[in-house]
Amino acid sequence: MNQDYIIADAWSIIEEGFDKERVKSSESLFSIGNGAMGQRANFEENYSGPTFQGSYIGGVYYPDKTRVGWWKNGYPEYFAKVINAPSWIGIQVFINDEELDLNSCTAVDNYKRELNMKEGWHRRSFEATMPNKMKVAVRATRFLSMALDEVGAIKYEVTPLSGDAKVKFIPYLDSGITNEDTNWDDKFWNTTEVLSEGSQAFIKAHTMKTHFDTCTFMECSLEYDGNKVDQKPEERTEEKWVGHTYTQETAQGKTTVLYKFGGYTVSRNHKPGELVDAAKSVLRQATTAGFEAMLKQQAEAWASIWEMSDITIEGDVKAQQGIRFNIFHLNQTYTGKDSRLNIGPKGFTGEKYGGSTYWDTEAYGLPFYMSTKDQLVARKLLKYRYNHLEKAIENAKKLGFNNGAALYPMVTMNGEECHNEWEITFEEIHRNGAIAYAIYNYYRYTGDYSYIPEMGLEVLIGIARFWHQRASFSEHKQKYVILGVTGPNEYENNVNNNWYTNYIAKWCINYTLEQLQKVKDGYSEDYERITGKTKLSPTETEKWKKVADQMYFPYSEEKGIYLQQDGFLDKELITVADLDKKQRPINQKWSWDRILRSPYIKQADVLQGFYFFEDHFTEEELEKHFDFYEPFTVHESSLSPCVHSIQAAKLDRMEQAYAFYLRTSRLDLDDYNKEVEEGLHITSMAGTWMSIVEGFGGMRIRNDKLSFNPRIPKQWKSYSFKINFRDRILKVHISKERTVLTLDAKEEMSLRLNGQKVVLQPGTATEV
Amino acid sequence: MNQDYIIADAWSIIEEGFDKERVKSSESLFSIGNGAMGQRANFEENYSGPTFQGSYIGGVYYPDKTRVGWWKNGYPEYFAKVINAPSWIGIQVFINDEELDLNSCTAVDNYKRELNMKEGWHRRSFEATMPNKMKVAVRATRFLSMALDEVGAIKYEVTPLSGDAKVKFIPYLDSGITNEDTNWDDKFWNTTEVLSEGSQAFIKAHTMKTHFDTCTFMECSLEYDGNKVDQKPEERTEEKWVGHTYTQETAQGKTTVLYKFGGYTVSRNHKPGELVDAAKSVLRQATTAGFEAMLKQQAEAWASIWEMSDITIEGDVKAQQGIRFNIFHLNQTYTGKDSRLNIGPKGFTGEKYGGSTYWDTEAYGLPFYMSTKDQLVARKLLKYRYNHLEKAIENAKKLGFNNGAALYPMVTMNGEECHNEWEITFEEIHRNGAIAYAIYNYYRYTGDYSYIPEMGLEVLIGIARFWHQRASFSEHKQKYVILGVTGPNEYENNVNNNWYTNYIAKWCINYTLEQLQKVKDGYSEDYERITGKTKLSPTETEKWKKVADQMYFPYSEEKGIYLQQDGFLDKELITVADLDKKQRPINQKWSWDRILRSPYIKQADVLQGFYFFEDHFTEEELEKHFDFYEPFTVHESSLSPCVHSIQAAKLDRMEQAYAFYLRTSRLDLDDYNKEVEEGLHITSMAGTWMSIVEGFGGMRIRNDKLSFNPRIPKQWKSYSFKINFRDRILKVHISKERTVLTLDAKEEMSLRLNGQKVVLQPGTATEV
Repeated sequence: MNQDYIIADAWSIIEEGFDKERVKSSESLFSIGNGAMGQRANFEENYSGPTFQGSYIGGVYYPDKTRVGWWKNGYPEYFAKVINAPSWIGIQVFINDEELDLNSCTAVDNYKRELNMKEGWHRRSFEATMPNKMKVAVRATRFLSMALDEVGAIKYEVTPLSGDAKVKFIPYLDSGITNEDTNWDDKFWNTTEVLSEGSQAFIKAHTMKTHFDTCTFMECSLEYDGNKVDQKPEERTEEKWVGHTYTQETAQGKTTVLYKFGGYTVSRNHKPGELVDAAKSVLRQATTAGFEAMLKQQAEAWASIWEMSDITIEGDVKAQQGIRFNIFHLNQTYTGKDSRLNIGPKGFTGEKYGGSTYWDTEAYGLPFYMSTKDQLVARKLLKYRYNHLEKAIENAKKLGFNNGAALYPMVTMNGEECHNEWEITFEEIHRNGAIAYAIYNYYRYTGDYSYIPEMGLEVLIGIARFWHQRASFSEHKQKYVILGVTGPNEYENNVNNNWYTNYIAKWCINYTLEQLQKVKDGYSEDYERITGKTKLSPTETEKWKKVADQMYFPYSEEKGIYLQQDGFLDKELITVADLDKKQRPINQKWSWDRILRSPYIKQADVLQGFYFFEDHFTEEELEKHFDFYEPFTVHESSLSPCVHSIQAAKLDRMEQAYAFYLRTSRLDLDDYNKEVEEGLHITSMAGTWMSIVEGFGGMRIRNDKLSFNPRIPKQWKSYSFKINFRDRILKVHISKERTVLTLDAKEEMSLRLNGQKVVLQPGTATEV
Repeated sequence: MNQDYIIADAWSIIEEGFDKERVKSSESLFSIGNGAMGQRANFEENYSGPTFQGSYIGGVYYPDKTRVGWWKNGYPEYFAKVINAPSWIGIQVFINDEELDLNSCTAVDNYKRELNMKEGWHRRSFEATMPNKMKVAVRATRFLSMALDEVGAIKYEVTPLSGDAKVKFIPYLDSGITNEDTNWDDKFWNTTEVLSEGSQAFIKAHTMKTHFDTCTFMECSLEYDGNKVDQKPEERTEEKWVGHTYTQETAQGKTTVLYKFGGYTVSRNHKPGELVDAAKSVLRQATTAGFEAMLKQQAEAWASIWEMSDITIEGDVKAQQGIRFNIFHLNQTYTGKDSRLNIGPKGFTGEKYGGSTYWDTEAYGLPFYMSTKDQLVARKLLKYRYNHLEKAIENAKKLGFNNGAALYPMVTMNGEECHNEWEITFEEIHRNGAIAYAIYNYYRYTGDYSYIPEMGLEVLIGIARFWHQRASFSEHKQKYVILGVTGPNEYENNVNNNWYTNYIAKWCINYTLEQLQKVKDGYSEDYERITGKTKLSPTETEKWKKVADQMYFPYSEEKGIYLQQDGFLDKELITVADLDKKQRPINQKWSWDRILRSPYIKQADVLQGFYFFEDHFTEEELEKHFDFYEPFTVHESSLSPCVHSIQAAKLDRMEQAYAFYLRTSRLDLDDYNKEVEEGLHITSMAGTWMSIVEGFGGMRIRNDKLSFNPRIPKQWKSYSFKINFRDRILKVHISKERTVLTLDAKEEMSLRLNGQKVVLQPGTATEV
C-alpha cells in the first residue's frame, strides 16, 4: 500500500518531493500514451538510480522463447513480449560541463510531478543542487500527441539559480535498449541505420524475428530567455545512438529551453522504405505547429474524450481522482482507431504479462468502450476475434480437437497462443466463454444484430464445438463433466468441474443454438453460407444439446451453494479475516504449493458467473454465494474488486461496495498489490468504470431497454456519468436526493428507473 | 521400437552395419562407465553427422537457471545439470592428409560395434572408403578402468587396404564443449590452463558457479606393425584445446596403432593445486601397465562383479542379453565406493533429467545393490539421505512447513531441490514416503537395526512431521485429506487424495511411531539424544497419530477398489486396448492438457502401493486392482513394467509377466519409448532385476527369513541368480522341473520355498 503518497486532486496525479525509492513506481503511475504508442514516465535527463526504462509501440512485439523446463505438446510456441522500443526522450543535460543526474545531486528541492489528465500532459519540475554546487531549476513538460499519434513533444527548461552557467543539452536517440524481462539479456532489435541531418536525426531498426521496421526520430531547437536561438548542433553518431549537442551560456535567473519532437514511424503503417520520409513529414507538421500549439491541440483532444467519458464524483476527491485516473489510462491505451490493436493488460506502462489481448478485453474492457465511444469501436473489438477464428481453430487442433472446434488463446498478439506460464494460462479455457459472452453483450447493448450473421455466428459455432468436444461423459455421475481446467481463480490449477467453466460452456452451446435458429429464420442466406462453410449438421447440434442439457454442476446440498470446483469443501475453510495479516499478499508470502491447496480465491470465480448471468439467479442466491465465497477471496487479482463492488452494491451493502470501489479505482495509485513498479493494471480499470455505472448506477439492459437502480455511497454528495446508448447520449446525475437524466438525442427514449418506467425528452433534464 | 536391431548375444551388445540414423541411439546403448566417470559411445575420430557428445564425471554438475515462465515462491532455485565434461577421447585421423569422417566416406563396410559386458570394453571396427578413394580398416577398442577409476584407454588401429598410406593421428583434449540442453548456449566451463609436455597434455578447467576443478589429461604412444615407434609428437595448443600430431607411413596391409590413455582428476578427490600431479601419477600407473595389461585387469574386475551379480537365463538369449545389459549398466553407474555419489536416472549416458538422486534410488535401486553387494553399499545409500536431512528441513521451510518437518527433494545433487519442471516434480511429495520405506526395507533385508537409532530415526521424525503438517482436516469428510499432489503417475498433476500418497503418509507416521517405541525400549541413550535434538514430545506424536488414524482413502464401493485419486471415476474410462495405436506413445502424440484429463496412467500408482505393502492386501484385492488399473496404464515411464511384471507373476499370469519382463529388460535395447538417443534409463534397470528375483523368483523376506515362490516363463529352460543375504551367499537356480539352492556360508540357513521350510547346509546344493 502506498496510501496518501499521491496528492489528492480531481484532475491531476501529483507527487511532491523526490524519493529515490519511488522513482520506479512513479514511472508507472505517470505513464503517458496515445493509443499508438506509450511510455513510462522515465526522466529525460540521465538517471543513475534504480529505474525501469520503457517505451512501447502498439502492436510491435517479439516472439521470445517460452520458458518451460520441459516442453510438452500443446504448449505455446513462443511468448509474445511487449517490446521496449528505441528511446527518443533522452536529453543529457550538463551544467558547466557536469552532468545533471538526480541520483547524484546533493539536494533536490521543490520536486513536483504532475500528470494532467484533463489536458493530457506530464510535467516534472525541481531545483537541483549539483556536486559542483550549481543550483538549477528545471521544468520538463512532455506529451504524446493524440492528434498526430506518431509524435511526442518535450519542452525542457533550465534556469541557473546560483550564478551564470553554461547549459549544454545533448538530446539523443538510442536503440541499444533491452527488455527488463529478457530471458538471458537477449537483444530484440537490430539497428540498420543511424542518420543525422542538421537538427533532425533518425535511427532505423527492426525487431528480430517479427521484423517490424521502425524509424525512431527527433528534431530539436533551442530557445534562450524567450527567444529562438539559431544553433547548428554538433552531431555525433554511434552504432546505435545519435546525439546533438546544443550549448547556451545562461545568465542566473534566465531560462534556456530545449524543444524536442520525437516518435516513431513503423512498417505497420508505412512502407518499410519510406519510414524516414514519413518521419520527416510528421516532424514537419509538428514543428510547423510548434510546441505550444500542439499542447493546445492536445488539451482539445482530451476535452473531447472527457466530454463523453468523464465521471464526476462530488464530495470525495480521492474517489474522483481514482475514476479519472482509470478512464485516462484506458483512453491512453486504446482509442479504437486501429482494429489490429487491443487492450494489453499493462497497456504502455510495463512489460509484464506479454501479449496484448486477454479475456479481459471481452469480460471487462468491452462495456467501457461500448458505452463511452461509438459502437463501431466495440464492433472492432469483436471483429478482432473474428479475424482470429482460423488461428483459434488451429490452436484447438494443436491440443487434439477437430472439426472446426475453436479455442481462443489466453494471450495473443496475432491470434496465436503466446503465453509464458502454462500452469495458469494453459487450462484457462473459460476464456472461450467470455468471447461468446461479448457477442451476446454487444448485441444486448447496441441492438446491432448484424454482427452475428456476418461474423459472430461462425465464432460461436467454433466455440460451441470446442465445448462439446472438451466435455466428457462421466459414467459415474451420468452427466457431462469438464476435467482438468483452471477457472478465473488462478489460485487453483487443473481442477475438475470448475462451476464457472461448466456454466459458461453450457450457456455458450445454448446461446449458439438460439442464434443458429435466429439466423436461419431471419438471415437465410447467411445461414446457408455459414452452415455450408462450417459443414454444420443437425446431427451435430443435437450432440451439443445433449452436452448442454446434461452438464454437471458441483453443488453442496448442505450449504445450498454451487461449489467452485469438485472437492472445494475438503479444504481447510479458514476465512481471510482469520488469516494472519503478515501472510498477505499470499502470492508474495506463500509457496505456490500452499496457495494451490488453500481455499483462497484470487478473483471472483463462481461470483464472476453470477455477475455475467445475474438474471439466472435470485438475489437470495447471490447473497448466499457472496457470503460464502467473498470471505475466502484475497482479491490479489486486479480484476476482483470491481465485480465484488458491483455485487455488494446490488445487495445494498454500500460500505463494502465503496471499499471495493476504492480498491479497484485506486489499485495502482495506492499500490494495493505492492507491484505498481512493474506497470499499471489497465484492463481492470474498465472494471472500475463498471463498478460505478453498473454497481452504483445499477445500469442494466433489460428487454432492449436501459434501466437504472441508483445507489450512492454515503461518502459522496453526487456522481454522474454519460453513456452512448444506441447513438443517444444519456447523462445520469445521481445525488442523495434525486437522479437527473439528461438525454441528447433526436427522439424521446423510455427507460426504467428503480423499476418505474420513465420517458425522457430530448434536450431536457428529467428529475426523479 | 527398435526390435531386432541389436544382435542377440548372451554377453555382448552388438550392432552390424553403419546407419547414420542410428548413431545417436547407439551412442547411448554402447555407453561405458566405471562409477566415477562415464561417456556416451561417441566416435574417437571426427564425425560430422548427427551425434550427441557426452562425457560425464560423477558428482560434477552445474546449477543452471530453472526455466519457468514466472517464478513463484517455493520453486527450486536452480536446475542441477549433468554437465558434459571436457572431452579426452578425440583422435583426428588423416589418411594421406584427408580426414577420416564416417559421414563423408563413400562406403563403410563390415561396420561392427561390440560392447563386451563380460569384460567391460567397447570396440568398433569397419572398413571405410574415403573420398580420396583410400580404403582403410579401423579397429578402436576403449574402456574406462574399473581398477584405476580416473583413467580410460583407447587402442586405435588403422590398416590401409588399398595401397600404402600416410597415417596421421592427432589425439587431442577439448574443453570447448557445451551441453545439448543449455538454455541459451551458455558455457559451463572456464578453462584456465592448457599444457603440453612431450607425449602428455593437460587441460585445467573448472565449472562455473560450482567451481569443480578438473584436469583432463592424455598420454599417447604410437606402434607400427607390432613395434613401438618412438616419435615426439608435434604439439599444438589453443585456448581450450591441445593436440599432438603423430605421423606414420604405413604399408598396405600393415597396421599403425595409436594408444591413448586419458581421463580426469577432480577437486572432489584431490587438492585443486595438485590435479596435474595427480594426473601424471595415474598416467604413470596406466602406461607402466600398458594397454593390454589394463584390459586384462578390466576383464578381471568385471569377472568379480559378475561372479556376484550375474543372472543367467537358459533358452532365451534376448532375455539373457536384456538382464545382463541392465546389470552391466547399474554397475557402470554406481559402484558403492563413494557415499557422495548416487544413481542418476540416466547414469553417464545422457544429460536429461538433471540431478543424480530421485526417489528411484530408494524405490527401485536399493534392492539391487543391497542384494548383489556388501550391505554397506546399501547403508551408504541410506546415509546419503541422512546427510541431507538438514537440507530437507530447509526445503520444507521454503514451502511453509516448520518444526523440523522434512521434505526431501524430488531431484538433487547435494540435498537441495534442483529440478526444472514444477508441474510434475513440484508436488510429488510421495518421494518422502519412499525414503522412509527404504529404511524399513533395509532393516527387513539386512537385519541391521543399528542404522535406525544412529541415523534413520531422525530422518523418520522429519518425514512424519511433514506428513502431519501436510495433511489437513476436511470438515466435510471428517477425515484428514492431502490436497494438491502429484502421485507416482505423473500423467496427473495437482490432484486431491492420491491414494498412494495418502497411504504411504499414514504408513510413514505409524512406522515412525513404532520405531520411536523400539528405540526407546532398546536404545534409550539414542532415544534421549534424538528426542532432545528434535524436541519431540508425546503431545506432538499424539497429533501425528490422529492424522494417521483418520486418513482418508478414496474408494469406490461400487467397484470395490481404491481410487487413484478423488474423481478418477469421472474420467472417460476407455482402456488402452481400445485406444488407436497411432495415438501412442501419448506423451509424444497428445497435448499435455489431453493427457491430464485422460484416464491413462504413466506408471504404477495404486499398484505401486500394493507392491510396497503387499502384505496389507489379499491376493484377491491385488487381482481386482490390477485388473482395474493395468488396462489404463500406458507404461510410458521406464519404472512401470517392472512393478507390473512382479505383480503379474504373483497372480500367476506368466505370459503377461514375461511380456512386462521383456519390456523392462529391453526397454532401451529395443527402444520401446522411442527416446533412447537421449540416454539410457538406468534406475529402471534395478527394477528389471527385481522383476526376476522378486517376480519370477518370488523372493520375499518374511519374519526375518528368506522365502521363495519360484515361477518360470514357458520360454525359458532355466534361470539363476545370486543374492547376498546377511553375509550368506545364496545361489538360486530355477528350472521347469526343480529349484536348486546353493548356500555359501559358514552355518546352515533355513528359508521357505513355496511355503515349505527348507534347511540349507553350507557348500551343498539343495534340490527341491
